[in-house]
Amino acid sequence: MSSTWGTNIEITIFGESHGQGIGIVIGNLPAGVELDMEDIQKNMKRRAPGQNKMSTPRQEKDEVHIMSGVIDNVTTGAPLCAIIYNSDQHSKDYSLLKECMRPGHSDYPAYIKYKGFHDVRGGGHFSGRLTAPLVFAGSVAKQILRQKGVVIGAHIQSIKDVYDESFDVNITEQKIAQMLQQQYPTLNQEMFKQMQEVIEEARMHQDSVGGTIECAILNVPAGLGHPFFDSIESHLSSLLFSIPAVKSVSFGLGEKITHLYGHEANDSYYYDGDVVRTRTNNNGGILGGISNGMPIVFRVGIKPTPSISQLQQTINVKTKENTELEIKGRHDPCIVPRAVVVVESMAALGILDMMNKE
Amino acid sequence: MSSTWGTNIEITIFGESHGQGIGIVIGNLPAGVELDMEDIQKNMKRRAPGQNKMSTPRQEKDEVHIMSGVIDNVTTGAPLCAIIYNSDQHSKDYSLLKECMRPGHSDYPAYIKYKGFHDVRGGGHFSGRLTAPLVFAGSVAKQILRQKGVVIGAHIQSIKDVYDESFDVNITEQKIAQMLQQQYPTLNQEMFKQMQEVIEEARMHQDSVGGTIECAILNVPAGLGHPFFDSIESHLSSLLFSIPAVKSVSFGLGEKITHLYGHEANDSYYYDGDVVRTRTNNNGGILGGISNGMPIVFRVGIKPTPSISQLQQTINVKTKENTELEIKGRHDPCIVPRAVVVVESMAALGILDMMNKE
Amino acid sequence: MSSTWGTNIEITIFGESHGQGIGIVIGNLPAGVELDMEDIQKNMKRRAPGQNKMSTPRQEKDEVHIMSGVIDNVTTGAPLCAIIYNSDQHSKDYSLLKECMRPGHSDYPAYIKYKGFHDVRGGGHFSGRLTAPLVFAGSVAKQILRQKGVVIGAHIQSIKDVYDESFDVNITEQKIAQMLQQQYPTLNQEMFKQMQEVIEEARMHQDSVGGTIECAILNVPAGLGHPFFDSIESHLSSLLFSIPAVKSVSFGLGEKITHLYGHEANDSYYYDGDVVRTRTNNNGGILGGISNGMPIVFRVGIKPTPSISQLQQTINVKTKENTELEIKGRHDPCIVPRAVVVVESMAALGILDMMNKE
Amino acid sequence: MSSTWGTNIEITIFGESHGQGIGIVIGNLPAGVELDMEDIQKNMKRRAPGQNKMSTPRQEKDEVHIMSGVIDNVTTGAPLCAIIYNSDQHSKDYSLLKECMRPGHSDYPAYIKYKGFHDVRGGGHFSGRLTAPLVFAGSVAKQILRQKGVVIGAHIQSIKDVYDESFDVNITEQKIAQMLQQQYPTLNQEMFKQMQEVIEEARMHQDSVGGTIECAILNVPAGLGHPFFDSIESHLSSLLFSIPAVKSVSFGLGEKITHLYGHEANDSYYYDGDVVRTRTNNNGGILGGISNGMPIVFRVGIKPTPSISQLQQTINVKTKENTELEIKGRHDPCIVPRAVVVVESMAALGILDMMNKE
Repeated sequence: MSSTWGTNIEITIFGESHGQGIGIVIGNLPAGVELDMEDIQKNMKRRAPGQNKMSTPRQEKDEVHIMSGVIDNVTTGAPLCAIIYNSDQHSKDYSLLKECMRPGHSDYPAYIKYKGFHDVRGGGHFSGRLTAPLVFAGSVAKQILRQKGVVIGAHIQSIKDVYDESFDVNITEQKIAQMLQQQYPTLNQEMFKQMQEVIEEARMHQDSVGGTIECAILNVPAGLGHPFFDSIESHLSSLLFSIPAVKSVSFGLGEKITHLYGHEANDSYYYDGDVVRTRTNNNGGILGGISNGMPIVFRVGIKPTPSISQLQQTINVKTKENTELEIKGRHDPCIVPRAVVVVESMAALGILDMMNKE
Repeated sequence: MSSTWGTNIEITIFGESHGQGIGIVIGNLPAGVELDMEDIQKNMKRRAPGQNKMSTPRQEKDEVHIMSGVIDNVTTGAPLCAIIYNSDQHSKDYSLLKECMRPGHSDYPAYIKYKGFHDVRGGGHFSGRLTAPLVFAGSVAKQILRQKGVVIGAHIQSIKDVYDESFDVNITEQKIAQMLQQQYPTLNQEMFKQMQEVIEEARMHQDSVGGTIECAILNVPAGLGHPFFDSIESHLSSLLFSIPAVKSVSFGLGEKITHLYGHEANDSYYYDGDVVRTRTNNNGGILGGISNGMPIVFRVGIKPTPSISQLQQTINVKTKENTELEIKGRHDPCIVPRAVVVVESMAALGILDMMNKE
Repeated sequence: MSSTWGTNIEITIFGESHGQGIGIVIGNLPAGVELDMEDIQKNMKRRAPGQNKMSTPRQEKDEVHIMSGVIDNVTTGAPLCAIIYNSDQHSKDYSLLKECMRPGHSDYPAYIKYKGFHDVRGGGHFSGRLTAPLVFAGSVAKQILRQKGVVIGAHIQSIKDVYDESFDVNITEQKIAQMLQQQYPTLNQEMFKQMQEVIEEARMHQDSVGGTIECAILNVPAGLGHPFFDSIESHLSSLLFSIPAVKSVSFGLGEKITHLYGHEANDSYYYDGDVVRTRTNNNGGILGGISNGMPIVFRVGIKPTPSISQLQQTINVKTKENTELEIKGRHDPCIVPRAVVVVESMAALGILDMMNKE
Repeated sequence: MSSTWGTNIEITIFGESHGQGIGIVIGNLPAGVELDMEDIQKNMKRRAPGQNKMSTPRQEKDEVHIMSGVIDNVTTGAPLCAIIYNSDQHSKDYSLLKECMRPGHSDYPAYIKYKGFHDVRGGGHFSGRLTAPLVFAGSVAKQILRQKGVVIGAHIQSIKDVYDESFDVNITEQKIAQMLQQQYPTLNQEMFKQMQEVIEEARMHQDSVGGTIECAILNVPAGLGHPFFDSIESHLSSLLFSIPAVKSVSFGLGEKITHLYGHEANDSYYYDGDVVRTRTNNNGGILGGISNGMPIVFRVGIKPTPSISQLQQTINVKTKENTELEIKGRHDPCIVPRAVVVVESMAALGILDMMNKE
C-alpha cells in the first residue's frame, strides 16, 4: 500500500507542508493505553524545526490535535486520528517550482507521476514535515513497547566525516536513557560539537551535509520475526526507507561485516547465568530474519539536504530547456539531528507491528 | 505476510534443504507469456552448487519441474507452481544440531520460535537453497520485464577487501549484456581472479568470506513508485533483506553519499535531446521514492558464510551449558558469487510487482 | 486490516458519532481528477439524517471538509483526507450504556473487546454515522468510474414485507438515471408509498423495520476479477458486510437460484451484433468470480434498527444481573432508505479498486 | 491477492483439474501441531467424487501428499505444502470448449481475461476440484481450533425445494458431533432421503440442482472481530464467496431478519449463571462485526451445477456465431452434499486467521 503501512498497527498518513495540516490515522491500537502526552510532546520537540541554526527557521509548534480514538488521554481501541495544523507556511510564489526541477528533490519524478497536478508548495506531500505525525505515532508505539520492557534509542553516528562511537555489545537501558537526555543524542558528547561546526560551515556556504544514525532496540525477546519475506530486516527496512533522504539501511556491522572472516563475523553464544548472550553482536541481534535476544542494532544513511541556495544546473519542463536555479526559502543545512527521533519512531512502529502479530 | 510476498506478482515459497524438495507458487502472472526455459535453466545454473571449489560440493542439478500454470511453455494465467526436487541430500545424523546452536546461523532463534519442532537437516527451510525457486521466479520476471524494455544485471562488487569497479552513470544495456556473459560477473575481469584467490585462501583455512553485490535496473520509466511506505527503496529492500545473509541494502552511492556536500550529492538534470538525464547518479535513479528515469542502482552486503569447520564456542540448549562445536559437512567458503543471480531475481520481482500495479 | 481497506484505492476511516468528527483518508487516488462537489453533496444528502420522519431527527449537514490531497477541486495524487465535523451531538448522560448492553447492538462484544474503554456516546466508532465519509469516498469513486463508462445505481427492494420490483436483464443507464432522481429510489414509485407506511407504523409503535437493497453496476467490461480468493463476489462482499446492520449479501438471483434447475439457472449466451450478452442474468454478471460483461447485480439484507424505545430485557455487566432497558434518544425507525447510497458507494469503491489493479 | 488469502494463516492454492495435480501452501502455521491424518483423510473423503450416483463418476482418491512443513506428522512452522496428484483425468478432446462457451461456467469471462491461454481441460484452475486442497487446509485448521475449544459443523439445509431444519439457539457440541457422523449431514435424516430423490430425478433428466448449507461455529469467545472492514462477516464472506458456485452468504436469520420488527430481531441478553447468553440468535453470534459469544451461524446458497448434458444455446467465440452445445463428460447432478465439508473448511480457516491475529 502506498499511504498505509502495517499489518497490526495500521498507520495512514496524509497532508501537505503548506496545506491546512498533516496527520495520521493509527488503526488497531490496543484499548486502554494511557498516553503520556508530555512525553509525546517532548519527542515532537526533538523533531520540530526552528529551534536553532542547524534547522530551518520555519516556526512550527507541532502541537498534536487528537481527533478520535482517545478519551481522557486513554485509547479507546478505535482508530486514532491526530492532526498537526500548519501555522507558519509562507504564501510565496511557487510557480517557478512547477517548471524548474530542483536537483536531488522529488520534483521531477513527481511531475511525471502526477502529471503536474501535485502540490509543490513547500514540497507538498513529499515534505519531511510528514515525519511529524510519524513521530507522534512512534511515540505512542514506544510507550506501548516500554510496557513490554522494550527500549529504543538512537544517536547521530556521523555528520559528514565526523563520527561518533558505535553501540557496543553491552549497551544498556541506563546508557540509552542517559544518551536520550540530549536533544540531539550522541554517545560521545564531544563529537556533537564538532558535528555542529561541520553543519555551520555548510550553512555558511549555502550548502548542506548528511550523516548516519544508529539505533538500538533492547529487550526484544528471541524468536520474533520470520525467515525470508517477513524477516525483521525486511519489516524494518520497508519503514526506514520511507523516511525521506534515507539511502542506506544496515543491520549490525552492516557492510563492514563483509571485511571479516567467518570466524570473526560469527557471534559466539554463551550462557550468562540462565540468559543466552553472544560475545559480539556483529549480526545486530537478528539471525535468519529472527531476533536472537541481543539488542537489535541498525543504521541508516541520510543524504545531504537537497535544498541548497547555491546556483544549480537543471531543466525547465515547460520550456523543455536546460536552465539554472537558485532555491530561495528556508532550508535545513542538515536534517540528521532532527531525524534521530524519526528513526526511533519507525523502529518502534516496526517492532510493535511484529510483536502484536505473534 | 511471512511465506508470501507481493501485491501483484504474488510469490509463495516452501520446502526444506533436505526434505523432498523446494518450490514456489507465482500468482497473478499475466497469461500468454512464452517462457524461455533455456534462459531460465542458465540462470538456475548461475546459482547452482557443486560447480567449483568456491561452492559447496553438493551436487544438485536444480531442474525446475513445473506443476501448474503453464501449457506448452506458455503461462495460462493460473498460479504457476514450480518444484525443484532434492537429490543429493546426505542422510547424516543431525541430532547434534538440535542441541548445539551454530554461531551466526538461525539455529538458536529458530529453536526458540518453533520450540524445537523445526527441520534442522541442512538448515531446513532457512537454507540458502530456498533461493533456487526465487531464481526461477526472478528469471520469469526478467523475461516479462525485458518485453517492457527493462534490463537487469548485477555483478560482484567486492569479496572481502577486493573491490571491483562500480557502475557509472553511463551504464548501457550492451555493457550489462557483456558483463552477464561471465558466470560470476564483474566489471573488471581481472578483479575476479583476485577474488577467487581470497575465497580459496579462506577455504584452505576452513574459514569463509563475504562481499557486496551491485545491481542496475535499466529503462524503468520515470514516475514509478510512491512517497513514503511504498517507495521503490522500501519495496525492493523488503525483498533484498529476504535473501539469507544480506545485512545491508543501499541505493545509489549508499552511505558514501553522507560524505558529500549537498552541491556534490545533488544529481543535476539536463536534456539529452528529448530525454531527461542527470550528470551523476548518486541517488541511484530514485528521488522521493519514485524513479527519475536514470538507472536504478543498489547494493547489498552479504556476510561471510556462517558455516565454517573451525572449532567454535557456543551453547547446548539441552544441557544448558557452554560448549564447543565443529560443524562437519559441505560448505560454501563464499556464497557471494552464487548470490549475484539471486539479487537480480529479487530486483526483477520487486520492479515487476510495482510496474504491474500502476 | 481493520481500519483500512483496499489494494489500490486505500480507504481508512476514523471518528466517533459524538466526538469531534468523522473522516476518511483515500490513498492512491489518481492525480488530476476534477471533483464535482455538487454531485458529492447531493449524495451526502441522500444519506444525511434529520430530513423526515423516517430517520433520526438529529440535524447534521454532513458538510465535507477536505484537509489534503485536493487543490482547486482537483486531486493531486496525495492522500485525500476528508473530515465531517459533528455539530448536533447531544451531551446527555451515557453512563447507563456503559453498564446496560443494548440488545442487537455492538455494545456487549465491544465491551469485551475494548475492556470498557471504547466510546459509547451515540455508538462511538460503531455508529452508522461512519458511513458518511464512506459515501464521500464512494461518490468520488463513482465519478472516476463514470469516466470509464461504469454506472452504478441502487434501489430499495423491500421494507419488511413490501417488495419493489427487481432489476431485469435489460436494465439500462437511462433507467438507472431516472430511478436515481428519487431521493430514496424504487423501481416502482407506488411501492415506496407503501414502504413509508410500514416505516411510519413501526415508528408509531416505538419499533423498527429492515429491508433489502438491490444494486446494479453497468458496463463493467468482461474479464474483471479472479477465481477463488479475489472473486468479484469476495471483493465486494468484504466491503458490503462492513456496512453496519447488513446480514446478507447475494449476487444475481441469490438464494432463489437454489430453487431452479440447472437448465433454468444457466444464462445462455448470444451475439447481439458484436456484443456478447446473456438472455437472463441469474448469475448477476459474474461467473467463476469474473465479470461476463452483463450488469453486476447484487442485494444486501439490512436488519431492523436495533435502537428501539420499547422496554427490552438485557444484562448489566457491572452488577452482573439481568435487567430491563429503555433506550432514550433519537432513532431511525428504518435505516434502509438512507443506506441505499451507502450500498452504491461500497460498490463503487470495490469495483474501482479492482479496475485499477488490472 | 488473487491466489493467496489470509493475514496469519496464509493459504495459496494452485493446480488444474486435468493437469498433474492440485495443491496448497499453508504459511505461518504454528509449530508443534500434531496432525491427525486419519481425521484429515475422513474429511477429504466427505468431498471426494465417485462415491455414489449423486456425484461425478470420476475416481479420485484425493490422497494428500505432504511436500514440506511437517516431520513425523508434526508441523515444523515452515510453510506446509500439500499436493494431490490427479489420477483419473480423461484425455479427451477439449478443443470444442476453447470455442463454445458453456453457459453458467467461467468459460467466457476466463476466455476474455486470459486471452484464450487458460487451461480448459476439465475446468482447469476454475474446477471445483481445487476445493480439495482447501478441505485439507481446513481440516488442519479445524484440528488447531478444536484445541482452543472451537467446534465447527455444517449440514445441508436445502436441496432445491426440500428443506432440512435449522440450527436453533441451543445447538450443542454433542448435536454437532452426532450430525457429523453422517457423510452428508442433515439435522433431520429423513429429509436427506427426500433430497436424494430430488437429485436423482435431476440426474435422470440430465439436469442439476443446487441448495443451501448452514454452518455453526461454537465456542468462539466474545470480542473477536472488528467493526467495518474486518468484521467477522467481511472476513468469512471473502472466503465463502471463493467457493465455486456460491451466490449468497448470510449470517443468523439472513434475509429473513428483514421480515421482523426490531423488537423481534433483537437478541435479548441474560446471565446463565456467569455466562452471557441471548434468548434467540437471530444475529448469528455477531454484532457490530464482533462475536458476542453465541454460536456463529451462517448460510451459503449454491447454484445448480452448470454442467448439464442437455442441449444449450450459446456462442462460438471463434466463428463469432450463435450455436448449440451438448456438454459430454462426467458431471455432478448436485455438488451441495460434497460442498458441506468445504464450507466447514472455509469457516475454520477464516476463524483461525482471526483468532491468531488478536
